[in-house]
Amino acid sequence: MDFITKLEAAQKLNRSLLCVGLDPALERLPESCRQAEKPFLTFNRAIIEATADLVCAYKPQIAHYAAAGAEAELAETIAFIHDRCPGIPVILDAKRGDIGSTAARYADEAFTRYQADAVTVNPYLGGDSLDPFLAHQDRGVVILCRTSNPGGAQLQGLETAAGPLYLEVARLAARQWNYNGNVLLVVGATWPEELARVREVVGPMPLLVPGIGAQGGDLEAVMAAGLRADGGGLVINSSRGIIFAGQGSDFAVAARRAAAELRDRINACRNPA
Amino acid sequence: MDFITKLEAAQKLNRSLLCVGLDPALERLPESCRQAEKPFLTFNRAIIEATADLVCAYKPQIAHYAAAGAEAELAETIAFIHDRCPGIPVILDAKRGDIGSTAARYADEAFTRYQADAVTVNPYLGGDSLDPFLAHQDRGVVILCRTSNPGGAQLQGLETAAGPLYLEVARLAARQWNYNGNVLLVVGATWPEELARVREVVGPMPLLVPGIGAQGGDLEAVMAAGLRADGGGLVINSSRGIIFAGQGSDFAVAARRAAAELRDRINACRNPA
Repeated sequence: MDFITKLEAAQKLNRSLLCVGLDPALERLPESCRQAEKPFLTFNRAIIEATADLVCAYKPQIAHYAAAGAEAELAETIAFIHDRCPGIPVILDAKRGDIGSTAARYADEAFTRYQADAVTVNPYLGGDSLDPFLAHQDRGVVILCRTSNPGGAQLQGLETAAGPLYLEVARLAARQWNYNGNVLLVVGATWPEELARVREVVGPMPLLVPGIGAQGGDLEAVMAAGLRADGGGLVINSSRGIIFAGQGSDFAVAARRAAAELRDRINACRNPA
Repeated sequence: MDFITKLEAAQKLNRSLLCVGLDPALERLPESCRQAEKPFLTFNRAIIEATADLVCAYKPQIAHYAAAGAEAELAETIAFIHDRCPGIPVILDAKRGDIGSTAARYADEAFTRYQADAVTVNPYLGGDSLDPFLAHQDRGVVILCRTSNPGGAQLQGLETAAGPLYLEVARLAARQWNYNGNVLLVVGATWPEELARVREVVGPMPLLVPGIGAQGGDLEAVMAAGLRADGGGLVINSSRGIIFAGQGSDFAVAARRAAAELRDRINACRNPA
């Protein structure tokens, strides 16, 4: 099954557009996890058990594991998701970007070593740098378009002959890079007007939207700007707002409550098909 | 000692602008290394022993290690360089790029976990995504500007109000992002005319130039376009052309010969100061 089919099946199954970011930070983990032999894995398993029926995807951000030398726990987390809830896809957030044989190695890292269903990539090096990822027809390639950070516009908002750079990326993604039907774009929740312009350019392509919660994105504006007529087409990510909703021994319960609440707020904005 | 000072001292010490890329691929290693307990480390140590007096830097590309789950061998390779030739800086080629707290984790990965002297980063997310790297005043931040691949111009060559995107990146790098004096740029050897335009914009900033050798860049044109008046300012990288110069048991001798030859060709283009 290809990635977008798997993603949309998970969205139907759990009636959810919510993606939970698995970005553990040792100093923010509850005591019980911090003292475990595998702190990140222990924490992630509890979060996954508590939210597996509420989400359409999980998105571990690899930097948090790499900084800690915890690659094994990342691999085990992804394997746990595939085993515990095989219908829920995993998006490895790695924002890779390199050329030729090196890009192929990064694709190996994401798709073979970690068995991710999709990976985030950076388009600055152009379409040929994306090909080694795009060649994996059954996996998703989630290309940065308009990022949620305050300085995102410094390059992405530069005006080119064809409009701002991020819109040119959206255009290339829709017209040139999506030859295997496995492309998605990242558009931050902090820029709903630009999300609307991207939606206009890319048609039904699914968009991954970070920046709700800690980063202050306006959920209702995002949904109005990006939702497809069929009530789909968006993957709304929240990381810290969910996984760190509680600090104590009931952290998994608190995470479930936060996830259910956000899923419901998202669904309240959807037009039932 | 800050990165650029260390780099330029190494260039003087070894009378060399050559950087050797440590990008091992298991299937291309000589039999003796392939059968070692730590194939990449065994191979890299032999290459480093054979070339340490010929280079100004080493540049391991992390994807090759990550795809193979060989992070420990990467860390041990870098530790070996620091121990064996402490004057030679290590540029971790990782092309990272992310926002806020995640970028800080990537900086931890490069500078704390791997103890790299510098790291390559991608500017697509804007200056605030680079700050967590730039904040490390004693380390180098090598920002992608104009990459060597055929499709590099697809975004980097787009015309903005201020000229092509890569030149705007060069301008930002020189005027805004270099507040700690630790910025370098990547400009591929395959585009000597664009290298000359970057040099005009950035003044004396050192440029890392990949694409000589396997990728077909013209060394003489590169040197004419990018060399500073003092005969410095360039770091010429070669990876496969050196480390895979020989396939047999004499691979280290062959690597030394290829490195000496390229160093000498580079020096023949330099104006002795």
